[in-house]
Amino acid sequence: MSDLVFYTNPQSRGQIVRWMLEEVGAPYRTEILDYATTLKGDAYRAINPMMKIPAIVHDGKVVTEVAAICAYLADAFPDAGLAPALTDRADYYRYLFFAAGPLEMTFSLKAIQYEPPADKQRMFGHGNEALVFEALDRMLGDRDYVTGTFSAADLYLASELGFMMRFGMITGSPTLQAYVARCTDRDAYRRGQQLDTEAAEAMKAAVPA
Amino acid sequence: MSDLVFYTNPQSRGQIVRWMLEEVGAPYRTEILDYATTLKGDAYRAINPMMKIPAIVHDGKVVTEVAAICAYLADAFPDAGLAPALTDRADYYRYLFFAAGPLEMTFSLKAIQYEPPADKQRMFGHGNEALVFEALDRMLGDRDYVTGTFSAADLYLASELGFMMRFGMITGSPTLQAYVARCTDRDAYRRGQQLDTEAAEAMKAAVPA
Repeated sequence: MSDLVFYTNPQSRGQIVRWMLEEVGAPYRTEILDYATTLKGDAYRAINPMMKIPAIVHDGKVVTEVAAICAYLADAFPDAGLAPALTDRADYYRYLFFAAGPLEMTFSLKAIQYEPPADKQRMFGHGNEALVFEALDRMLGDRDYVTGTFSAADLYLASELGFMMRFGMITGSPTLQAYVARCTDRDAYRRGQQLDTEAAEAMKAAVPA
Repeated sequence: MSDLVFYTNPQSRGQIVRWMLEEVGAPYRTEILDYATTLKGDAYRAINPMMKIPAIVHDGKVVTEVAAICAYLADAFPDAGLAPALTDRADYYRYLFFAAGPLEMTFSLKAIQYEPPADKQRMFGHGNEALVFEALDRMLGDRDYVTGTFSAADLYLASELGFMMRFGMITGSPTLQAYVARCTDRDAYRRGQQLDTEAAEAMKAAVPA
């Protein structure tokens, strides 16, 4: 049997990987890290020198970066049916990297309330926020999922959009709202959310008064 | 025979895709777009609503985002040997997405001379610039290539690092400098650079005096 360890903090983008692991269905062990202590310790630094969560270790192989973990798990566990055939990955990679690049950039820049001026937009992979959401709206306007059926690309893209909606960073067009609702209406998503809610509560209870 | 069209501007990250196409070795047709005119036209907007280059269209399928195009071509043309087996993609995806996310973020923020303050770094996928290069140095310190042999992940990562060095944005540690020199010491890289130099000169010559 394969050995699969999941390093996370329940209040982080680790929730995306949790959902992915629940979709995959392979047994895994969860290691909860605390931002102030274990995340910066030598043990975890050897796994991810960036000191970022989440990460996974699968049979001794480390994967970091949320989108990379989703793409890796989809390929490593093909029975879950979360990645298209190698000959048919145009939209799959296009939107995985769109979410990891331009959309993530939009997310981060909104957090510092910065919009690149016109003469700098070519330096930014996302151009500007309006372009990003116009492009997503156009793409999702004519299909239910990025590749026709639910895949790791939807799991990642819908998670990023869902975070931005939950944090009040975007409202989201009716198309985007319907897409996020469609993607998250899955048992694996609900199980993942439940597990992370319980983990967050356990962390709170463990803090000395 | 497959139909492969490459949309680019020779003075852009399109150079990365040009290199990848030269590695793949399949015949392709190049469409040069001008930032001020054809890039914003309806014809190209139908291909990429983001109005960004590069893009490819392969047998009617559009792929945008440089890293996505590299990953797509590596899978679509397996004879080129630029992607590992599906069961062995931990480092491959990890560093493709590392370059497309944290490293690209570093690149863009340097262009606006912004370093996130400590309390905002968790919002940014890259944390901060020092962490990004420390992580890369550590990873590349013990191997010649990301996955053991040259792959699309090296092509993309070395290109991003090479751009930052060429633009004087980073000096790069001896490890990173050696890595970029090792990756770019290939006939396909030299052919790609030559083709883009010629295309840039042709564009200059076409501008009315």
